[in-house]
Order: sequence, then C-alpha cells, then structure tokens
Amino acid sequence: MEEQTIRVQRSETKKEKPQSDQLIFGRSFTDHMFVMDYSDPLGWHNASIVPYQPLSIDPSSMIFHYGQSVFEGLKAFRTESGDIQLFRAEKNLERLNRSNDRLCIPQIDEEFTLKAIKQLISIEKDWVPSAEGTSLYIRPFIISTEAYIGVAPSMNYKLIVILSPVGAYYKEGINPVKIAVEDHYVRTVKGGTGEAKTGGNYASSLKAQEIVAKQGFAQVLWLDGVEKKYIEEVGSMNVFFKINGEVVTPQLNGSILSGVTRSSVIELLKHWGVPVSEKRISIQDLYQAYLDGELEEAFGSGTAAVISPIGQLTWEGKDMIVNNGETGELSKRIYDTITGIQYGHLDDPFQWIQGIEAKSPVKH
Amino acid sequence: MEEQTIRVQRSETKKEKPQSDQLIFGRSFTDHMFVMDYSDPLGWHNASIVPYQPLSIDPSSMIFHYGQSVFEGLKAFRTESGDIQLFRAEKNLERLNRSNDRLCIPQIDEEFTLKAIKQLISIEKDWVPSAEGTSLYIRPFIISTEAYIGVAPSMNYKLIVILSPVGAYYKEGINPVKIAVEDHYVRTVKGGTGEAKTGGNYASSLKAQEIVAKQGFAQVLWLDGVEKKYIEEVGSMNVFFKINGEVVTPQLNGSILSGVTRSSVIELLKHWGVPVSEKRISIQDLYQAYLDGELEEAFGSGTAAVISPIGQLTWEGKDMIVNNGETGELSKRIYDTITGIQYGHLDDPFQWIQGIEAKSPVKH
Repeated sequence: MEEQTIRVQRSETKKEKPQSDQLIFGRSFTDHMFVMDYSDPLGWHNASIVPYQPLSIDPSSMIFHYGQSVFEGLKAFRTESGDIQLFRAEKNLERLNRSNDRLCIPQIDEEFTLKAIKQLISIEKDWVPSAEGTSLYIRPFIISTEAYIGVAPSMNYKLIVILSPVGAYYKEGINPVKIAVEDHYVRTVKGGTGEAKTGGNYASSLKAQEIVAKQGFAQVLWLDGVEKKYIEEVGSMNVFFKINGEVVTPQLNGSILSGVTRSSVIELLKHWGVPVSEKRISIQDLYQAYLDGELEEAFGSGTAAVISPIGQLTWEGKDMIVNNGETGELSKRIYDTITGIQYGHLDDPFQWIQGIEAKSPVKH
Repeated sequence: MEEQTIRVQRSETKKEKPQSDQLIFGRSFTDHMFVMDYSDPLGWHNASIVPYQPLSIDPSSMIFHYGQSVFEGLKAFRTESGDIQLFRAEKNLERLNRSNDRLCIPQIDEEFTLKAIKQLISIEKDWVPSAEGTSLYIRPFIISTEAYIGVAPSMNYKLIVILSPVGAYYKEGINPVKIAVEDHYVRTVKGGTGEAKTGGNYASSLKAQEIVAKQGFAQVLWLDGVEKKYIEEVGSMNVFFKINGEVVTPQLNGSILSGVTRSSVIELLKHWGVPVSEKRISIQDLYQAYLDGELEEAFGSGTAAVISPIGQLTWEGKDMIVNNGETGELSKRIYDTITGIQYGHLDDPFQWIQGIEAKSPVKH
C-alpha cells in the first residue's frame, strides 16, 4: 500500500475539558477525530483528522441493519514527566485486522493507522489527563456504510478513531465484584464471531447482564455455547483463576476474545516464574477447587479496568467466596505492575510501551 | 400508551421513480421516511414523517460500537384494481417486539407503529409499483443512539421506517439454487440471538456466504451451533423439505428465526391437508432420505423471495440433487398461492391481507 498523507482540519472551537476527578468512562470526547474511507477501487483513502462531529449516514446504510462492524479499545497514558505513551497499540491493530477478516471488512494498513492515531493524540495532547489512574481512551472502529439493504459485505466503510479522557477505574481502591455464572444465555459459540471484536457479541450479552444486575451481581461469567460447561469470559473481560498456586485462564478456542491485557498477564506471570496455563476449565472443576479450598484468587482482565478482582461467584445457587471477598495478593501485584508500566513508574522489560512525540506541560 | 399524533413534513422535491423493470432490491428509497425517538422519561415520542434524509449521529453512538439494533422486513403489494395491501404486517411488528426484548430495547406500540407505516405508505402511494412481481419493501428498524461507549443498554433509540420499491425476485421464472451445507461457521446458537432479527446474526453469516459463493453456491445451509448436526436455516431464510410426501421444517428452538413466510407455508399446507411437521432434522437423516429416493423437494422461505427452491445441496463433498434440479410441484403451488393472495389474485381465507386507504391510478 502506498502511504497516504493525512489531511488535518483544525477545529475552530475548543470544548471545555472535564476536570480530572469528574471524568466518566466514555461520556466526553476530544475536539478532533480521525476518519478514513474505503471504496473500490480506491481502497482506504481520504485519511483526515477533522473536528469531532456527527456522522451523516444514509438510513439504508448497512451498519444500521446488518451489524457489519468492528472496533478496538486502547489507552494513552500521561507519565510523571509529562510524556504520553501507548500500551501495546500494535496488538490492538493486529486484532482489528483479525476482526476485519471474520467480518469480511477489508484489511487496514496497521502501521499507517497507528501513525494516524499517534498524530491525532499529538494534536489532542492537552486532553490526556494527568491525575492518578486517568488516561485517554482510544476507540478505533469500522462501520459498513453502503446504502443498500441487501445481506452482503458492504462495498463502503468508514474507519473512525475517537478519543475520550477517562477517569480512574477504581476511585476508592480495587473493589472485588460479585459475578453470576450464566447458564441460559450465551455470548457466542465456536464458529461464530466470539474471537472478533464486533458489535453483535456485545449486543448479545446485554440481556443476561440486565437480568443478573437486578439480582445484585456486577457481571456474568459466560460458559461455552456448546456444552454450557466450560468457562469462557467474564462480562466483557477475559478471566483468570489462581488454583493451588497455579494461574489458569480459558484457552483460546474460537469463541473467546484474545485480550491484549490477557496476553500481558500471561507474559508477566511467566516472567515472574508463576505457573500459568491456558486450558479448558469446567465450572464443575472450578467449584470442586473451591470446595477443596484451592480456589485462591479470581479476576477479570481488560483494557478498561486492567484487573477486576472477583470476590464471589454464584453458580446454580451455590456461592463461591474467593479470598474472603478481598483482592488477592497476586491480582494486586499484577494490577500494580501493569499500571506501573503503563504510567512509566516501572521499567518495561517487555517493550510494551511506545512514546508519542507530544510533550505538553504537566497539569496538576 | 397514549396515542401520539404523527407530524408530517412533506419533501419539497420528489425523486425520479425507477422504472418497474429496473428495480433492484434495496437500492432506491422513496421520498419520505417515518422516524420516532425514544428517551426516558418520554418513552417513544416525536413520531414524524419527514423527507428521506441522512441521519446525523454522534460517532460515539452505541449503534456504531455494540450492535444493539433490530429490524423487520415486509412488503406492500399493488392489486390489479390499484389497491395497496399489506401481508401479515402485524406479525412483523409482534416479532419486532420479541427482538426488542432479546436486545434490551424498549417495546413499541405495535398498533401505532402499524398505523404510522400505513400513513407513510399512503403518502408514498405512487411509489408502490404495479408491474408483475414488484412490490414496496418496508424496512422498520431500531438503532441505539446514546452517545456513550460503555457496554450497557442504550438510553436513547430511533425507530425508522424506510421504503424501497423492489423488482420481481424471479425475473426469468423461479430458478432453483445450489446450496452448500456449512460445517465450520455457525450463524448463532441456542441462548444467543438467533431468534431475534438483529444485525449481529447477519454480520456473523457473511464470511461463510463469501466462501461458498466462490465455490459456485448461492447460499449456505446452517447447522446448529451445538452439535453441527441439525438443520437450522438456509442463508437468511427458513428451510423446508418434502420427504416421502410429508413436508418438514426445523422446529423453533431459540436459534431459528420465526419467519412470517414460514408460518404462512405451514398454515397453507395444513389448510390443503398436506402433512407438515416442525421437528429436529439431522443432516444425516436428510442425506439418508436422499439416498432412499425420498427427498422430493427442498426450498427456502422468506419475505424477499417468498419461496426459493433448492436444486442441489452439497454436504461434505456429497451432492444431493433435488427433483432433478427443478422446481418442485408443491414448491410452485405454495409460491403461486402466497403471491396470489399477496397481489389479490386469489381469495384470502386466512385474513393475511389488510388494505391501505390509498388508492392511486394504476400505472402500466
């Protein structure tokens, strides 16, 4: 692919930036966005940074009817010295292309898209918050825009990147959550779209989540769609268990999202010499480990929360209280280490971090 | 619900209507559309018929990220006397609400929405084509519009109805198609969203379709996501087989769409005294019936094509040629009867038809 130039159209007005302590996840967006169009035979073209604005889309456009879309989520962090850095961004763009493949969306140039994201953040550098635990959430997404209500891959797409300053996920320290094991609804199944980051997986998950929320649970633990026996994910996160000193997580099987934080947790544990394995884990075996007093810790992993400890799992009316409902020592150590690397407090032996050339004054 | 009034804003310009013989499914749309908004505590409000126009939607709106959407498809037909009539429209609106329930979208007032659709068609009456086999396709859809990139049911929605004049599905007579039995990808699974008419199911289906199209097949036959053994649907249609004089179709199981045409076919066969049953059908048993010379006819059913005969099914490299690759007698009789009722050529003993008060001159 020949490298495109990125046209930049600056916003004439600037929004007021929310205060660091009043940031809510995904509610406020910066002054600009990146947009790129796809059509035949041009391919991806018209790469532009433009003022953040509503999209004008024909009501017959495929995105409104047949759900052909993919997205990613990653973050930029402000270090103490005022630098801005990205965490494993190339992994997100690799996954975006894997999602594209499953959804019949044309491949993007990962390197170019990463460059565009960096340029966008550089323009929006004053939007990267500096208070502890805050960051700039980056949401690249691709939507099918052809004005045609036939079921077929779209001929036209838009790739858009929007940025949202987000607050500390844990304002009052990490708080373990109560999780219900879901035995009726399923998120997806092998042969379906579970491995792709596409809207339908999330739409499908809403109902189960709504039901358990009324019962006082924070999220559901998803079981596999075939036998409803093997553990897959928790809410929209990957899931880990520490059982008798060993950390286990469900192995990727086609219906589990290959999380970037998931892979970081595995690498970190290997680096520390903590036994870790990816394997099929049945809910029955997990319950047995609990009864045997061997279920030591449980946590979800994802970009938004990094690590979300599980204090209680409820399966068919049976409660498993994990680590007295408190955050486990290893969970905490993983959280502190990954966030420490993200914010530049700790060394990065894994080369997970890349800087953005966009120094701006540190604000306090 | 208190009945709303529908505000009407007429388009100042009129598009040129495509010629009856040049209509392509889902490519051209009429001059107006119906729009209604949802928000708390207003509920559904702001019901309006407005000029057909692009939607202006924030890039962070949920529809672009988490696929929370539902849709329907139905048709209005022009009779020989110039009347316009709808086919079982109330069934589509009932199903829209069932889809809403699965996708955590607020229920609509079915009666009011049907009234709005009729009023819209009445305004667009000149767009209902009159050439044989043509009709006005009606696409109601609901999208989640809240500007928030958190995974949760949206607080805001838009219900939109657009209309598209569509040509005869079979321009050169009914043509049986070649179908590949899909044994890798699945459309959906029990506990998922298969019973709902939501974008994710269609997005999920594109990849398999793309692969078999390259091998010369028109569509895939979907097997169940659990055992990959039982027949579910064909492409985006329900499927029927005539085996040794009896018609069978997969029973609704939570992952199969409850098709309006499917239910019409079943009612019609019962009315005729043709044995028909809804049951689990394994692909192995179907193949055995083929080997035994008992697989007499096979067809898909759906709103777009009504009946789509299957001339060949290919499963694990084995070809089943159905009825010498020709349209079966019963398939043809069902097609002729349903379309005959739709266009008012035949009596309607089932009360499937309702007229729209919108007489306009018959055009030839």
